[in-house]
Amino acid sequence: LVGEFKGLVREETGSDFPQDPKQQLWMAIDAVFDSWNNERAVMYRRINNIPEHWGTAVNVQSMVFGNMGEDSATGVAFTRDPATGEKRFFGEYLINAQGEDVVAGIRTPHPIEDLKKSMPVIYSQLESIYKKLEVHFKDMQDIEFTIQDGKLYMLQTRTGKRTAKAAINIAVDMVKEGLIDKKTAVLRIKPEQLDQLLHPMIDPASPVEVIAKGLPASPGAAVGKIVFTAERAEELGASENLILVRAETSPEDIGGMNAASGILTARGGMTSHAAVVARGMGKCCVAGCGGISIDAVNKTMTIDDLVLKECDYITLNGSTGEVIKGEARLIDAEVTGNFEKILSWADEVRGLGVRTNADTPHDAELALGFGAEGIGLCRTEHMFFGEGRIEIVQEMILAETSEDRKASLEKLLSFQREDFKGIFKVMAGLPVTIRLLDPPLHEFLPKHEDLLEKITILKTKNIENEELKQLEKLKTRVENLDEVNPMLGHRGCRLGITYPEIYNMQVQAIFEAAAELIKDGEAVMPEVMIPLVGHVKELEITKQQVIQTASKVMEREGLKLDYLIGTMIELPRAAITADEIAAEADFFSFGTNDLTQTTFGLSRDDAGKFLPEYVDKGILPCDPFVTIDQGGVGALMEIAIEKGKKTNPSIKLGICGEHGCDPASIEFADRIGLDYVSCSPFRIPIARIAAAHAALKK
Amino acid sequence: LVGEFKGLVREETGSDFPQDPKQQLWMAIDAVFDSWNNERAVMYRRINNIPEHWGTAVNVQSMVFGNMGEDSATGVAFTRDPATGEKRFFGEYLINAQGEDVVAGIRTPHPIEDLKKSMPVIYSQLESIYKKLEVHFKDMQDIEFTIQDGKLYMLQTRTGKRTAKAAINIAVDMVKEGLIDKKTAVLRIKPEQLDQLLHPMIDPASPVEVIAKGLPASPGAAVGKIVFTAERAEELGASENLILVRAETSPEDIGGMNAASGILTARGGMTSHAAVVARGMGKCCVAGCGGISIDAVNKTMTIDDLVLKECDYITLNGSTGEVIKGEARLIDAEVTGNFEKILSWADEVRGLGVRTNADTPHDAELALGFGAEGIGLCRTEHMFFGEGRIEIVQEMILAETSEDRKASLEKLLSFQREDFKGIFKVMAGLPVTIRLLDPPLHEFLPKHEDLLEKITILKTKNIENEELKQLEKLKTRVENLDEVNPMLGHRGCRLGITYPEIYNMQVQAIFEAAAELIKDGEAVMPEVMIPLVGHVKELEITKQQVIQTASKVMEREGLKLDYLIGTMIELPRAAITADEIAAEADFFSFGTNDLTQTTFGLSRDDAGKFLPEYVDKGILPCDPFVTIDQGGVGALMEIAIEKGKKTNPSIKLGICGEHGCDPASIEFADRIGLDYVSCSPFRIPIARIAAAHAALKK
Repeated sequence: LVGEFKGLVREETGSDFPQDPKQQLWMAIDAVFDSWNNERAVMYRRINNIPEHWGTAVNVQSMVFGNMGEDSATGVAFTRDPATGEKRFFGEYLINAQGEDVVAGIRTPHPIEDLKKSMPVIYSQLESIYKKLEVHFKDMQDIEFTIQDGKLYMLQTRTGKRTAKAAINIAVDMVKEGLIDKKTAVLRIKPEQLDQLLHPMIDPASPVEVIAKGLPASPGAAVGKIVFTAERAEELGASENLILVRAETSPEDIGGMNAASGILTARGGMTSHAAVVARGMGKCCVAGCGGISIDAVNKTMTIDDLVLKECDYITLNGSTGEVIKGEARLIDAEVTGNFEKILSWADEVRGLGVRTNADTPHDAELALGFGAEGIGLCRTEHMFFGEGRIEIVQEMILAETSEDRKASLEKLLSFQREDFKGIFKVMAGLPVTIRLLDPPLHEFLPKHEDLLEKITILKTKNIENEELKQLEKLKTRVENLDEVNPMLGHRGCRLGITYPEIYNMQVQAIFEAAAELIKDGEAVMPEVMIPLVGHVKELEITKQQVIQTASKVMEREGLKLDYLIGTMIELPRAAITADEIAAEADFFSFGTNDLTQTTFGLSRDDAGKFLPEYVDKGILPCDPFVTIDQGGVGALMEIAIEKGKKTNPSIKLGICGEHGCDPASIEFADRIGLDYVSCSPFRIPIARIAAAHAALKK
Repeated sequence: LVGEFKGLVREETGSDFPQDPKQQLWMAIDAVFDSWNNERAVMYRRINNIPEHWGTAVNVQSMVFGNMGEDSATGVAFTRDPATGEKRFFGEYLINAQGEDVVAGIRTPHPIEDLKKSMPVIYSQLESIYKKLEVHFKDMQDIEFTIQDGKLYMLQTRTGKRTAKAAINIAVDMVKEGLIDKKTAVLRIKPEQLDQLLHPMIDPASPVEVIAKGLPASPGAAVGKIVFTAERAEELGASENLILVRAETSPEDIGGMNAASGILTARGGMTSHAAVVARGMGKCCVAGCGGISIDAVNKTMTIDDLVLKECDYITLNGSTGEVIKGEARLIDAEVTGNFEKILSWADEVRGLGVRTNADTPHDAELALGFGAEGIGLCRTEHMFFGEGRIEIVQEMILAETSEDRKASLEKLLSFQREDFKGIFKVMAGLPVTIRLLDPPLHEFLPKHEDLLEKITILKTKNIENEELKQLEKLKTRVENLDEVNPMLGHRGCRLGITYPEIYNMQVQAIFEAAAELIKDGEAVMPEVMIPLVGHVKELEITKQQVIQTASKVMEREGLKLDYLIGTMIELPRAAITADEIAAEADFFSFGTNDLTQTTFGLSRDDAGKFLPEYVDKGILPCDPFVTIDQGGVGALMEIAIEKGKKTNPSIKLGICGEHGCDPASIEFADRIGLDYVSCSPFRIPIARIAAAHAALKK
């Protein structure tokens, strides 16, 4: 082998491998320094913002050999169990072997306990050393050792990697042991890692057959029967575990997504509709799984040669993006007492409030359980998609006379009132930020292409009946509402200005719900949020409408209640003119999803075609829809805060985009002086830890 | 009559009309002050930014009567001809009448010359007074007078309204007369008004029947036969005057729009595709004419009961938005020597350069004639729609192998090289800013719905042939490229990064064209402009590609030429991070169209549904796509300039959006320190005057 290598060196470099040990040493040292400067390392540092000037170092030390005979050995060990955090020495070793042999898995190593029997003196030395190391470094250590001719050498010690569960248990134990204080314990928990603990997962012991891989869009695991339409999911959902499989999802699929245990899409990225909604629901989702091809008509999905039909079982692993054939065994997530303890320690140090995004009493309850201190975003449009509602919403949109429109709104009013009552009741006096209707109206109507297809079929068959007439009427309205760029279209407060009756209905529902509860002796704290304000006059007008409607309800009910009126800051123009807007607002909630879209000129729905490439190539350090782009979007937020505080020093500041659950963004939110972040219920523990980190790092 | 009024007063106020003259006078005075405070007046001041504190005044003077008999009279007159500017006393009078009678048109007044005969003494008094007034006010006066019992009273004098032609002639004459200086003469010309002089118009003497009214989207007038498709327009265009009538236009219609004399659309606003392209072409356009309904299949358009067929004649008045039945008589615009003179005076004082937006040698030549000092925006995508080209572009987009793609690009290369050569040649060494490909690729493919319709028809008829296969393949690619928000999609430099071969082809064409001309002894000054940069790294990467390709061509051709590489600033993120971007750019060109869309979160294509209401209600002072929104978009531009100059003090700054031809925006551009504006050829004289005004008002 040595001969072969020497030959190769001669061939490639044109000269013999040097035999002078000193020269060999220098070459080895050079190799290390060169590796700091290779292209991949340079790129890695650039992407991860590791400064060039840190440089690297080379340790030169004499070699020891674990393969010198039966009184030599080598091993690796952790000072505590890296999977559970249990306080026990945990590791493996091999007699007469080198380190590589343990790692490579060619020979089966012995558990470290056996060393106690086979080399008791060495073991007790090792024991005293690992304890000393742990006390010195005040953290669980991952150590490597070699025994040469009966003498123990320590090769390396470093902080050991661990599961989320172990991290929590170790941190809490170490506080009990007096090794570290509570703050250090909180800093030991990586917020992102907690995700593991918040969802069911596939039993690692269960054998699985991975048949495709997509994006890990929403963590956790789900087992169920395949269905191809949201309607079918809603039909079967009550009695069955289902996986909804779609090319991509749209707002109409909400009901079906809710009925399913997991969602699988062929298209769309980490921030596609399916991904965002699934994360919000805390539901497992694998998105953008290009390897599957779906035939919705014949109800089959194909992966290479494998054809799966409706009601065949699959399993999704939303944490890895894997699609698994059949039913894998799931295990429930464990939330031990230590988890709650460390969260309460985090609460002691964090300055940032943590609210939740919740649209239903169920979500609100879930979020309260995770420690939410209020609702930062209650999206009223999701309430419009429920059964028996979407039909009324469509009726309202298609209404030809203002009487018809008012009649439809009257029906919606009682639904919305109940919605808000349920949510207020759960939140029991905590602040509830309700965003008035935001999406463009066409989102509530059938798709144009579906209508066109139906009409074309009828026409080609020369059928001219009432259905055709109705379809054509609907199509005309859809065409009339159609938008080239719906993201930049007739939505948000623009709707509230052109159709004030819609916002008035919503505000009436909010205040009637609040009034009913107050009469029952409950506490209520509504915060009315007006979306998509770009010019202060939009806020002025809409605010006056809200005040009028609220006052009317309160007067009629004979009571007065505290409430706030605020606005989203989700357009660059709102940020730039925040001084004007703040004069009219009780609070700003940064809608960082839309602010990122407009600041970058980047559609979240379309970015999947090039954004991954941008991140891969290092053009962007990370997906700006996951972590706030501090240089651009963040700079606008800072301008907004500075200007806003100028005219309204007591303005409340929050964030309600997807970024509210991203640790790096939470740190940024804390640094620029926000009062709270808001995120989906399942991410609240992560946000609590991240907020504590932000405070501790200041 | 008096009795009736008195009765009414008693009925409404409950008391008799006061008979005390003093009380009557006070009531009249109060009425004037009240009118300052009525709701309409308050709104008017708010919209037009007239400060409240100006207040109003009341003149009290004794009444004179022109209806006291045959030696009494009343009249109005202009000190020069308000239509032509000719230096002659111009007016009308009536014997034994009140002012109202002249204005109301119940009696036919006499020309003022007759007064010379009928009341020679009065006439000569009037003559000396009007001359005194003109000299005093140094401008053409609009005067009112009354003669009571043979005595002349002057009621009012004010600066007279005039046509653009008159404005120019009067201003130049007054300079000759020594009444005003050149700068004052330039300030006398309202830039907007010049538009009248730059297009053919309907002979005011020709009787017309207005059958519908839309938006005056592009000024001038056009007479022609109706056609309903772009293809038909191209077919007939060479030999006929045509009016292209469409629900709305899309980029595919460019050829047809070019072939037509005027464009009429049922949908879309002042900044719709039809409007923008028509203005760019200097072609008459009436847009958003909701009163017409188009049946493209049966080739008819209906207005109320009137049904017009293909090849029926209509006339458009793009300056008023009127649609006229039949053929109205058109007259050519006159550009007199005085027009050129006043433009040259404007050039003497303006600091701001004026360039043109031009995509063809023809436009470039036109623009040079109007005084363009370079091309500020040459859109390369318009070149892709030409005959024999769009097919190759589609071939390139559909290419499955990189060889096929390169072969298509190779074909496009020779087209583009000729395009650039033609433009460079016309511009003869003036700077030519060429924007690399900007729109998303799907703009070059057929519409999805059209494909779907064709496929559904074939399928319903159970026809499965090669055509169906091809259509389905095309449909798949269209679906694949489809975007929810194309404005925020895969376009601009994002294309240049994912398909570098497209930009490389364009750059190669630019530099090969330049090289050929230089070898012929011509001067060339190319400025390569990279669109839609949001992050400096996008510019870094694309810039390196440009430099490499340019260097390769120059090396091969054995020459070196000066050129610049710059970027559009059209995304808020680019403005906010302009310091980073300026370090890599020779120039910034503010793409204020897109910057307005992203800053406001407002799609230009969709805004028609609520933007007019916003302006009507005073939510916005004006359409931000017409006049730069200084508080938001403008503030971002100022940030960009300040930051950009920090890292690149010599950076060249321009504007190439539609705002480049708007006088208020030009004044803003001058104030914030831009070097030039760029606008469509027909607007250049307007921009030259507006730029002079900006300099003079500083």
